[in-house]
Amino acid sequence: MPMLMGLMQGRPLQVSEILSYAARAHREREIVSELVNEPVWRYDWERCAHRARQAAQALTTLGVGPGDRVSSLAWNTHRHLELFYAVPGMGAVLHTANPRLSDAQIAYTINHAESRILFFDVNLAPLVKRLRHRLPRIEHFILLGQANASDPDSPPWLDYEDLLARQNGDFDWPSFDENAAAILCYTSGTTGDPKGVLYSHRSIVLHAMAAGLNSAFGFNAFDVIMPCSSMYHATAWGLPYAAAINGCKLVLPCDRMDGASLARLICDEGVTFSGGVPTIWTMYLAHIAASGQDVGALKRVVIGGSAVPRAMAETFRARYGVTVLQIWGMTETSPLGVISTPTPALAAEGDTFADEILLTRQGRMQFGIELRIVDGIGNPLPWDGEQAGALQVRGAWVVERYFPDIRAADANGWFDTGDIGTIDRFGFLRLTDRAKDVIKSGGEWISSIDLENAAVGCPGVRIAAVIGVPHPKWEERPLLIIEPHEGQAPTAEDIREHLASRVAKWWLPDDIVFDRIPLTATGKIDKKALREKY
Amino acid sequence: MPMLMGLMQGRPLQVSEILSYAARAHREREIVSELVNEPVWRYDWERCAHRARQAAQALTTLGVGPGDRVSSLAWNTHRHLELFYAVPGMGAVLHTANPRLSDAQIAYTINHAESRILFFDVNLAPLVKRLRHRLPRIEHFILLGQANASDPDSPPWLDYEDLLARQNGDFDWPSFDENAAAILCYTSGTTGDPKGVLYSHRSIVLHAMAAGLNSAFGFNAFDVIMPCSSMYHATAWGLPYAAAINGCKLVLPCDRMDGASLARLICDEGVTFSGGVPTIWTMYLAHIAASGQDVGALKRVVIGGSAVPRAMAETFRARYGVTVLQIWGMTETSPLGVISTPTPALAAEGDTFADEILLTRQGRMQFGIELRIVDGIGNPLPWDGEQAGALQVRGAWVVERYFPDIRAADANGWFDTGDIGTIDRFGFLRLTDRAKDVIKSGGEWISSIDLENAAVGCPGVRIAAVIGVPHPKWEERPLLIIEPHEGQAPTAEDIREHLASRVAKWWLPDDIVFDRIPLTATGKIDKKALREKY
Repeated sequence: MPMLMGLMQGRPLQVSEILSYAARAHREREIVSELVNEPVWRYDWERCAHRARQAAQALTTLGVGPGDRVSSLAWNTHRHLELFYAVPGMGAVLHTANPRLSDAQIAYTINHAESRILFFDVNLAPLVKRLRHRLPRIEHFILLGQANASDPDSPPWLDYEDLLARQNGDFDWPSFDENAAAILCYTSGTTGDPKGVLYSHRSIVLHAMAAGLNSAFGFNAFDVIMPCSSMYHATAWGLPYAAAINGCKLVLPCDRMDGASLARLICDEGVTFSGGVPTIWTMYLAHIAASGQDVGALKRVVIGGSAVPRAMAETFRARYGVTVLQIWGMTETSPLGVISTPTPALAAEGDTFADEILLTRQGRMQFGIELRIVDGIGNPLPWDGEQAGALQVRGAWVVERYFPDIRAADANGWFDTGDIGTIDRFGFLRLTDRAKDVIKSGGEWISSIDLENAAVGCPGVRIAAVIGVPHPKWEERPLLIIEPHEGQAPTAEDIREHLASRVAKWWLPDDIVFDRIPLTATGKIDKKALREKY
Repeated sequence: MPMLMGLMQGRPLQVSEILSYAARAHREREIVSELVNEPVWRYDWERCAHRARQAAQALTTLGVGPGDRVSSLAWNTHRHLELFYAVPGMGAVLHTANPRLSDAQIAYTINHAESRILFFDVNLAPLVKRLRHRLPRIEHFILLGQANASDPDSPPWLDYEDLLARQNGDFDWPSFDENAAAILCYTSGTTGDPKGVLYSHRSIVLHAMAAGLNSAFGFNAFDVIMPCSSMYHATAWGLPYAAAINGCKLVLPCDRMDGASLARLICDEGVTFSGGVPTIWTMYLAHIAASGQDVGALKRVVIGGSAVPRAMAETFRARYGVTVLQIWGMTETSPLGVISTPTPALAAEGDTFADEILLTRQGRMQFGIELRIVDGIGNPLPWDGEQAGALQVRGAWVVERYFPDIRAADANGWFDTGDIGTIDRFGFLRLTDRAKDVIKSGGEWISSIDLENAAVGCPGVRIAAVIGVPHPKWEERPLLIIEPHEGQAPTAEDIREHLASRVAKWWLPDDIVFDRIPLTATGKIDKKALREKY
């Protein structure tokens, strides 16, 4: 197509521009970081930018160049934040390894990334000691924090603070193609080896801009953001970047995401916005209920990773005046997919209806990432809130290929998420299942999530898991596995009776067993393990 | 620099994606348009998208193809909105001609653009009749509205509604390079011929995303936006695009920006956000004060184009609870440059100080557009709020070259705005003068704006203009021209006395004359005409 080209500036979207902006426009806005064995650290965006430039200089002296990979095994701290900017800023790629994976998986991702440097937090030193002989490509191990000089086993690793102290910070961020790689993040897929998603500068900047809009997180310069999703999980939802674009104060809780630590940081630092998986907020709410602490300046909590328990959202709102937003996304979507912010169309239906949608849906479509649901042969399904299909997405911050070169999206850019859901006429997505967890029974689908949610409501049930087991007539039938609360013993009869009024008759599981339910590294039910067992 | 490329989707940022998003995610959100001789028009984003696709089909049948230019002489209406999406969406370029320019300038811009089609609103038919023989390249004149069939002089023009009625709207927006041209907008420079700024799809989308952030306009889906800056002035500040991205209701006032019309629309349509030049808001405030009307749901008014009178901002806030935001920008910056939203650093200085900054500065730096001030030889000056220098900007929505190929920015991307200003430590810009209006006296600069603002405060003075006149000793000295209020007659002595306590002694004008002050097509003081006269 012969086009006329526009005549505006073709300046690349680069991660370094985010930090340079914050250092200039919001230079004294604070960053507070908890650390493993050190007192709390406080500085601001200007000094963060200075140290990030020092880090880039230090990496240059170690021979790191454009396109090289550098891994981190690190918590939510200011040093990790500096690497989020320094490594992509200089044109290299930060692989944020997940310390919660198994040793074998961690080694796999670092080796697969072909990283030359490994940064690690001090309490992960034992892990690094175990792994180091399985990481033949790592040339330098760099400790983020204070080494224990008296440790006789201490291997010859470098000290991040020493490296920085030798640099003057007089470094100009290079300008390059905005499609260059910036961050490499592996999925913790329950099937097969972890897959690498390679974010570009462009995808990170566009995602961070979109995250700040009021349809999503809606940040303003007065917000104080505490990311309680780990920085190695899809860049903590892009919050370290969105905070800088919006001039927000950033509070980094290190690895201390227990209820007491969060409650203290939220109050003391004036946190207005936080986000994380439901487990964290369960601990937080339990702690403040027991201690009688208040929520300080907290206004909004974004919860993702699993469905938000209704009681949690209601407690936050009714007792503490905090709005809960649900979010759905995945490593492959950077991770912002949908978020449950209200709209006038919903509000027009009345508060009860709007609340019901906001509490039970994952969220609504955002500008920049398209959604659709398709049937078994790829035909788009209507947005009627009834028909469930495979959820597909595309957009500037959606994966095209897995690292180094495995196709992820189809020729039209549609990436199949592996989730099953409905979209209603308000554009709100409701996930009904993972594609691999859906139970195909007699040509119809049974939602394992709906069945699990119904079972969890039965007194005495702590966790419920549903898997499909082969059946000669119906193809598959649901098997329900129940882990009761400590000291309680609901019977199969109790549970069947509870379910009977809540789900379709043909959904009722043929078998109910009582067992301990295995969880994955990210706190989700490990259905792979259950399928192997049953 | 050898880089590793990211593996995210390289989907282009295109104007059509904005409309498709709104039509899907906010489909029933309303658009209300006043029209010249027709009743008010109401529809929604879904139907707007349908008619934009019909318009693209109609243009295709008229032979318009990629890169072709199409001009509009049109007000803020839904039809003009459709062209904002249809023309760029199909890969052509919309030139939004300014009907307030002189006939010669209008003809110049349309011919310079080499447009093949001219759309025009019904009350601009007399203008088009005068101009048509000076527009040899225009193949089709298309009336936006209902033709007066009984007009014996009616030339053979097409009817927009007829053209649309013949199309079914079954049209797929093509995908193409995001750097393709989308909108061509000419400056109404007071020196020389108008210059064409050619916005790209990329610059428009990035600008519209940034405009929605809380550092700028901070839209949410409940906002009702009424652009009172004309759509032919730098796309009405990008509001027609930002409204769609944020799911806002859009209220288009046609050409009726008088106080009574605005007051009615603001109340009846629930307008929460509006923006325009100070003149419009003077009329609006005078009207509601006289009529006793209230401001309805109005929350924020953004004022740009000239400095905001302090009394206006204070009246809006104290009497009506409306926040006034100042904005500075120009056609060359799409136009978002800076905007006066508060920050914690300002707030920490206390309300009085913060108010003073917000009322007297043009605004603060936004992510995506860099600012600097430089001295006479191009060295950057510090952000101390004291030292004034030439304001330069760069960024993804800043002009690189004027159409068709005239350099506008330097090799590093810095575009010299022609404005003189200071930037303070909070990152707030204060314009002190236009570079060409500054008076160079004895090696120092006298700000004509500061002198005019001081003179306007003197009782009896309606407008004050300051120009530099050659002086044998001092190089230049200020000449003050005063237009008194009807029926009032302040003396030169009154004015000198008033100024004496407000400006430096050496700033005091040697001569003060009383005269009618000429204004430009955009309502600014026409200093070019004054310089010619004196």
